[in-house]
Amino acid sequence: MTTSFGPSYVRAIAPYIAGKPISEVAREFGLDEATIVKLASNENPLGMPESAQRAMAQAASELGRYPDANAFELKAALSERYGVPADWVTLGNGSNDILEIAAHAFVERGQSIVYAQYSFAVYALATQGVGARAIVVPAVKYGHDLDAMLAAITDDTRLIFVANPNNPTGTFIEGAKLEAFLDKVPRHVVVVLDEAYTEYLPEEKRYDSIAWVRRYPNLLVSRTFSKAFGLAGLRVGFAIAQPELTDLLNRLRQPFNVNTLAQAAAIAALNDKAFLEKSAALNAQGYRLLTEAFDKLGLEYVPSDGNFVLVRVGNDDAAGNRVNLALLKQGVIVRPVGNYGLPQWLRITIGLPEENEAFLVALEKTLATA
Amino acid sequence: MTTSFGPSYVRAIAPYIAGKPISEVAREFGLDEATIVKLASNENPLGMPESAQRAMAQAASELGRYPDANAFELKAALSERYGVPADWVTLGNGSNDILEIAAHAFVERGQSIVYAQYSFAVYALATQGVGARAIVVPAVKYGHDLDAMLAAITDDTRLIFVANPNNPTGTFIEGAKLEAFLDKVPRHVVVVLDEAYTEYLPEEKRYDSIAWVRRYPNLLVSRTFSKAFGLAGLRVGFAIAQPELTDLLNRLRQPFNVNTLAQAAAIAALNDKAFLEKSAALNAQGYRLLTEAFDKLGLEYVPSDGNFVLVRVGNDDAAGNRVNLALLKQGVIVRPVGNYGLPQWLRITIGLPEENEAFLVALEKTLATA
Repeated sequence: MTTSFGPSYVRAIAPYIAGKPISEVAREFGLDEATIVKLASNENPLGMPESAQRAMAQAASELGRYPDANAFELKAALSERYGVPADWVTLGNGSNDILEIAAHAFVERGQSIVYAQYSFAVYALATQGVGARAIVVPAVKYGHDLDAMLAAITDDTRLIFVANPNNPTGTFIEGAKLEAFLDKVPRHVVVVLDEAYTEYLPEEKRYDSIAWVRRYPNLLVSRTFSKAFGLAGLRVGFAIAQPELTDLLNRLRQPFNVNTLAQAAAIAALNDKAFLEKSAALNAQGYRLLTEAFDKLGLEYVPSDGNFVLVRVGNDDAAGNRVNLALLKQGVIVRPVGNYGLPQWLRITIGLPEENEAFLVALEKTLATA
Repeated sequence: MTTSFGPSYVRAIAPYIAGKPISEVAREFGLDEATIVKLASNENPLGMPESAQRAMAQAASELGRYPDANAFELKAALSERYGVPADWVTLGNGSNDILEIAAHAFVERGQSIVYAQYSFAVYALATQGVGARAIVVPAVKYGHDLDAMLAAITDDTRLIFVANPNNPTGTFIEGAKLEAFLDKVPRHVVVVLDEAYTEYLPEEKRYDSIAWVRRYPNLLVSRTFSKAFGLAGLRVGFAIAQPELTDLLNRLRQPFNVNTLAQAAAIAALNDKAFLEKSAALNAQGYRLLTEAFDKLGLEYVPSDGNFVLVRVGNDDAAGNRVNLALLKQGVIVRPVGNYGLPQWLRITIGLPEENEAFLVALEKTLATA
């Protein structure tokens, strides 16, 4: 649609494409919602933890009131858990909000933002949203090339997005390499380290990014309750950074961006270590099942440290959409990634054992008839 | 704090000051939460409607999943209720989100935004957030001077905010005057008509702004579920505008800005006419009680069509903060409006009868000892 309204950089934005909701697929394909398997949005297949459900129920009598704009209790819980003062924490309506606010807070029109090819779609949207120039650094083996990202920094670069693990590819950067990278980034360039999937990392790959926040005034660590914590539908994420960055984020943050129930549920989920451990174990088991099946089927996949796997379902650029459509007709929703420049691939969220099996049955049937 | 990060227009923002939450006042003043009366944030004193509570409970099993980014069912309900196609609707995380997205979508750095003195604080924040120039038009009798606002439009004006009724003053613009105004606004300037309090209007003052949206491609009507609908804690608002504006808003809208429970509860609240009527009746009754008491006390107030009253509590510029503090110590939270340039006034949300009475008792005691 041609329009006379708005800045050119806003008119140029192509909106985010979300995973199809179950209800939408049921309507479109005439399927029963109960038979549909959704492995499209990297949600926790266990759903919301019971601890968070109980906390939410207790907060449900307060909903005529605005949420606490300062989220006193949730910030106190995060402060205690991560060992930083409460004024180092910024809350977001999911980490999507954190990423958008960061672009808005640190970058103005005409300046540049660096991020990697095949990294999270919201980096491009946030960049376009402020009229900034994207410097997209070619990936290596579908992951970040940190040396090339350093070399890509220009005089007008104000922000770098780094996803670890990365979505939609699942690639991982070792802590030591990230630390060396942070050491070399100019101090006036903000690094947003997006750790949406960090809770899925096995013990031996973990690193202490909060310690780096203490060391680097230009580092912002972004986390979410939408993945391993199981609260995608409630919308809560957060940033940890030193007060200089945090103060700017909070000037732009909408005061009531995190709703009352999300605040209550997040406190409970944060302290539910058993749920996190169960989620990570289930994920590791599902990852083995899916990747062993891909090996048997001779399908290439990218080794993943997230709760999803990127798999190549054909060697022609129509393959992703073709296989996706065939899966949808069988009631299996996964994520096509053509918009990421990966038209031969699909991203599969790791689900419950029976969901993974249902996907594999539908996939094998699809590939056999292709 | 001096900082080298971020654009100068972001560093210049003073964050929104929310009404103090009950829990915060209890902590600060050593009071029992149960004894505190909060009349500070224009919330519905009836809380959330039961219909919405039931709808929310039914949606609570889906919270591990992301919300429907397109909000199919809520948009369908709004479409039916207001008689516009679903693609004329944009959902927001409260109408705060709508106001911010509108500024972002229609205005770029260096262009200007027109709004009235003493109108809602978020207009200034949204203007600063995009680095635009604010043209603040002096109020007449604490309300909008539409002729002066028309005259204030410059070549670089892209947006006008009009609040009706206005917050924090409660002033109202008759429909016929608004219509004449819309007719004269240049077609390339977007008018955001913020009707957060419209459900409180008595029958004889109502007008059909949705009919105007059909006529004016540059008109956006903003509404909220946070006031009469009783869902402040859940965060949902919406805009109605023709597709050309709506399309731009949706390019910037965060896909999951309205959470799953808010979507479900809003559908129920939208259709709960009995609750709206009860809320409006209770409000009218409380308005009479408060204003009769102000008359008796000889206090000036601004006649209000919202669920709040602006009252002058003294003739010196310390009066608002002084009386506010005295009320806080007695466990009554109202809203000082010094940040609006109204340091002699307080804004009182109309509460339940017993809350209004408690406020009046505390106010009389305060004024008697002053």
